[in-house]
Amino acid sequence: MLSVAEFDKLAEQVSNWGRWGADDERGTLNLITPEVVRKGTAAVVTGETFSLAMSLSLDGPQNGVGVRGRINPVRTMLAVNTPMSPSPDSAAYSDDIVVTPTQAATHWDALAHCSHRGVMYNGVPADAVDASGATRLGIESAGTVVSRGVLLDVARHEGVDVLPERFPVTRAALEAVERAQGKPVEEGDIVLVRTGQASRFLAADVPGYRRSVPALDHDAPLFFHERGAAAVAIDNMPMELLPSNVEDVVLPVHILCLVMMGMIQGQNWVLEDLAAACARDARHTFLLHATPERFPHSTGGLVNPVAIR
Amino acid sequence: MLSVAEFDKLAEQVSNWGRWGADDERGTLNLITPEVVRKGTAAVVTGETFSLAMSLSLDGPQNGVGVRGRINPVRTMLAVNTPMSPSPDSAAYSDDIVVTPTQAATHWDALAHCSHRGVMYNGVPADAVDASGATRLGIESAGTVVSRGVLLDVARHEGVDVLPERFPVTRAALEAVERAQGKPVEEGDIVLVRTGQASRFLAADVPGYRRSVPALDHDAPLFFHERGAAAVAIDNMPMELLPSNVEDVVLPVHILCLVMMGMIQGQNWVLEDLAAACARDARHTFLLHATPERFPHSTGGLVNPVAIR
Amino acid sequence: MLSVAEFDKLAEQVSNWGRWGADDERGTLNLITPEVVRKGTAAVVTGETFSLAMSLSLDGPQNGVGVRGRINPVRTMLAVNTPMSPSPDSAAYSDDIVVTPTQAATHWDALAHCSHRGVMYNGVPADAVDASGATRLGIESAGTVVSRGVLLDVARHEGVDVLPERFPVTRAALEAVERAQGKPVEEGDIVLVRTGQASRFLAADVPGYRRSVPALDHDAPLFFHERGAAAVAIDNMPMELLPSNVEDVVLPVHILCLVMMGMIQGQNWVLEDLAAACARDARHTFLLHATPERFPHSTGGLVNPVAIR
Amino acid sequence: MLSVAEFDKLAEQVSNWGRWGADDERGTLNLITPEVVRKGTAAVVTGETFSLAMSLSLDGPQNGVGVRGRINPVRTMLAVNTPMSPSPDSAAYSDDIVVTPTQAATHWDALAHCSHRGVMYNGVPADAVDASGATRLGIESAGTVVSRGVLLDVARHEGVDVLPERFPVTRAALEAVERAQGKPVEEGDIVLVRTGQASRFLAADVPGYRRSVPALDHDAPLFFHERGAAAVAIDNMPMELLPSNVEDVVLPVHILCLVMMGMIQGQNWVLEDLAAACARDARHTFLLHATPERFPHSTGGLVNPVAIR
Repeated sequence: MLSVAEFDKLAEQVSNWGRWGADDERGTLNLITPEVVRKGTAAVVTGETFSLAMSLSLDGPQNGVGVRGRINPVRTMLAVNTPMSPSPDSAAYSDDIVVTPTQAATHWDALAHCSHRGVMYNGVPADAVDASGATRLGIESAGTVVSRGVLLDVARHEGVDVLPERFPVTRAALEAVERAQGKPVEEGDIVLVRTGQASRFLAADVPGYRRSVPALDHDAPLFFHERGAAAVAIDNMPMELLPSNVEDVVLPVHILCLVMMGMIQGQNWVLEDLAAACARDARHTFLLHATPERFPHSTGGLVNPVAIR
Repeated sequence: MLSVAEFDKLAEQVSNWGRWGADDERGTLNLITPEVVRKGTAAVVTGETFSLAMSLSLDGPQNGVGVRGRINPVRTMLAVNTPMSPSPDSAAYSDDIVVTPTQAATHWDALAHCSHRGVMYNGVPADAVDASGATRLGIESAGTVVSRGVLLDVARHEGVDVLPERFPVTRAALEAVERAQGKPVEEGDIVLVRTGQASRFLAADVPGYRRSVPALDHDAPLFFHERGAAAVAIDNMPMELLPSNVEDVVLPVHILCLVMMGMIQGQNWVLEDLAAACARDARHTFLLHATPERFPHSTGGLVNPVAIR
Repeated sequence: MLSVAEFDKLAEQVSNWGRWGADDERGTLNLITPEVVRKGTAAVVTGETFSLAMSLSLDGPQNGVGVRGRINPVRTMLAVNTPMSPSPDSAAYSDDIVVTPTQAATHWDALAHCSHRGVMYNGVPADAVDASGATRLGIESAGTVVSRGVLLDVARHEGVDVLPERFPVTRAALEAVERAQGKPVEEGDIVLVRTGQASRFLAADVPGYRRSVPALDHDAPLFFHERGAAAVAIDNMPMELLPSNVEDVVLPVHILCLVMMGMIQGQNWVLEDLAAACARDARHTFLLHATPERFPHSTGGLVNPVAIR
Repeated sequence: MLSVAEFDKLAEQVSNWGRWGADDERGTLNLITPEVVRKGTAAVVTGETFSLAMSLSLDGPQNGVGVRGRINPVRTMLAVNTPMSPSPDSAAYSDDIVVTPTQAATHWDALAHCSHRGVMYNGVPADAVDASGATRLGIESAGTVVSRGVLLDVARHEGVDVLPERFPVTRAALEAVERAQGKPVEEGDIVLVRTGQASRFLAADVPGYRRSVPALDHDAPLFFHERGAAAVAIDNMPMELLPSNVEDVVLPVHILCLVMMGMIQGQNWVLEDLAAACARDARHTFLLHATPERFPHSTGGLVNPVAIR
């Protein structure tokens, strides 16, 4: 169990406050330079593409009350084959509408998603998020999110389909996988961490998917910080261990990544097919496209991430 | 004015029914092979990125009744700095929910968006779209949408910021721009057609954006068909001239692209910044990421398209 | 087990098709004449009022998939103490928005809610309900719903707080309660049937509330028909036994009430406090106000019913 | 023009703070005793009923941005004639879902709708309304709303169909109408004020309905206070003159009614048919049912009010 004092030291260690200016709202996404994008492009070998998104439907992982109001998406029709004119030669159109939490399924946490002791990234006061939304640090600050992606397949490294319940994905664990895979994470990369947990969701076991999941431990952000990761995403819902291994602190990884580092983090990403392909030819880098939908002032980023190998 | 009989001949000319099998639901997206994706990747020179999306907000281009129920997106908060525990050392979180038509702003029309004389692409009966959604040809059929993109900047070619009202973007016009830009559209490319109309929207002139817009004429799909385009997108709302130049037929381009060719089409794309960059170095190809959000059975595809030059 | 043939005979027996004209869309609500309203008014003795509605919130009885898309209501804020002007002397306002199925909690089934063998009440074709809503028999056809109400407290009559699981509330059971309570149901009355099941909901036992509930048996509509009830409501979710006691027929009571009689029916009504008051002074009639919200073309009627004793 | 100091004196004059206890959240609704309800019942002569609600549809009076996010209601289908079982003898069902601001059309303002200088009714701090809703003074505090209703038909008294633009409905104007109609408003009554403005809405003239409307002037609340009205409703959108006749104060009537008196107020009520009936037999009292839907913590109350004459 880490003490609060030790946690505060860790927070100081990974802090990026002021690094890109007092007004910066993009945090570690600043590390994605045009060169990094070109490096991502250069990682494409075969041209295969992989969507990493869950379907946005009533069969999603939410229950409406775990996070109050986070329902599963509801999609209904506005029109079904409505004729454009009385002429039988005209087109007819169909149209739909959705109600969805921005964090219902596969998503990014915006920097505005999380505050700690009254502040968010770069010292922005927590009340910059109010009933009107995130007046600062909203998902639109992210802009485009395209970079080289690196998969760290912890489950496969451990020789299992899914990591055991509450398996702590520590900094050391990430280093071990990185070493075994043989290719270091570099500055500007987006890191995808696989626990295998999403396979439970794909098997329609929502309770199993939600139950005491294997996830990031509190020192994992140190790894991301040292490597200069631009963003990180994972294949479970909470991102990190619940309860955490830090005394009195719920969501220490959220605090370290979002608040201290200014690094957006992704949850409910489905990495199964991508990971299988990476394992086949032992190649774990790719071009990753993960630009969220631009709902201004949103604290979450709806996204259908695509990896191109 | 084209007669219905002439239009029917045109429809036959561009038809792809059966071309990829009787059960195919991806249409011209089948033309995007891994080689094409690699060609798209190879088009990246500088690594600059451009989002082509409008913001999804109440300031959008809809009025709720033009297409009945197509409102502008409403985003509200589910939580604002809600503490995760009583401890002051814990994180607090914020969360939001959106109500949005899938075709509210920048989007793809799914093949299920349009039917003609009771059928959709590949002969699928129109009633495959019902109150439950698109049981076939929904946006999830598209899968990933990544390819080489080509901008055809008609407005700039004509020497104007915005094409005149109701300017018909014909096949000949597209050929002329292609010729002038010096680089042919190739099989599998996604074509972006710029009329300049989105600049009105960016200037907050929604009525002007909606009013009798410059758009595709009915023979434009011939151009896309001949080149083997995988998809096409434009910077206005209706895609095509309203009213059309085909007798008795409303939305002939929708019919030709969606129903006959099986080609998804994009609307309300913002091409201003991308076009300026393309003009600067006379380079009109790029890698285009435009994978829609995966709302199963949806007739529209919410998307934040990104071009990488 | 009733056979289909026997059920069809029953349906014929209670049919009101044509009774109020070929175009009628109000069905048994026609039985509420001004005289009946005055009789309802005359039933008021003390002036006490009772709301019979569940709260419309995320803690409601729905799960989103039992009836696909019937989620619990989500309410969020549009504004929180937004100042009307810069002057500190001006008012500030707060505002909210809800997403709710019309049948999420306490509601009326509109006549359009149910079809049988392709038709609805009065022979209206089932396809009068389409993706645009109920073009006929929608809840707006009901108009105002105010009449004398009569509580038939089956649970109390059986000497229990809640009737046993799958207890069949038959015509005979209703007659027995009516006789014991000493006051006959009369033409135009709205009948409220109490099983006690809603007490499970009030105790926050949603699974128990949903599980194999005591409910109307298939011959109960005969009772309503013979008495000339204008409408009927109950304190459970399905209204009737699930599965039913009619061979091959799911929802026979829905068919008899909605389709054959043209009688709207209410579900998820909370009758506990009203019933206790009625029992105290052995007076089971009251003025009932239960006019649904006017969402045109809706198949369900959101309502906060109020009894005045 | 009233000065702020004079306005503050007016506010003090009508204040009900503390009158029903420090914790009271019902305000003037406390004036509706069982005796008052019985008096309301006694006002019923013919048994005719009148709904006073607008339809809740896309054709409503909102534009989405006047009050940001107040869109018109959107209703879509969850199911259309979905069979309950494969048997053709089973029922099929249809179901719908709505998205609606609670103040989209005919509604009550909850006491939580409005704050002034940081407080609401009875001194409740304004921040009792937060992103989660109204933790105090929400519409559920109103409970049932049933009383004697009194129509004050100002338009008819002035001999016009609609009062002129910006006609100020002052205390004196209300007194004059009351005197002319011959029946005083009594303690516990709900007062309905008719300007005729809703006739513009019924004629589908939404811009006309919204434009500089005849409405309550700032001293009208004195009248309600002196008479002991339990609530007041009007047939326009803003309730009161915009801009007001009080220096620096936007919405003085909201402040006086909601914050000072603790009196809920209704807007967008349709009084045309009721008023015509009242005029015919010169009888302006009736039983009024106006219990809002119970969305807990809501600042607005969706309602379909019904008058019974």
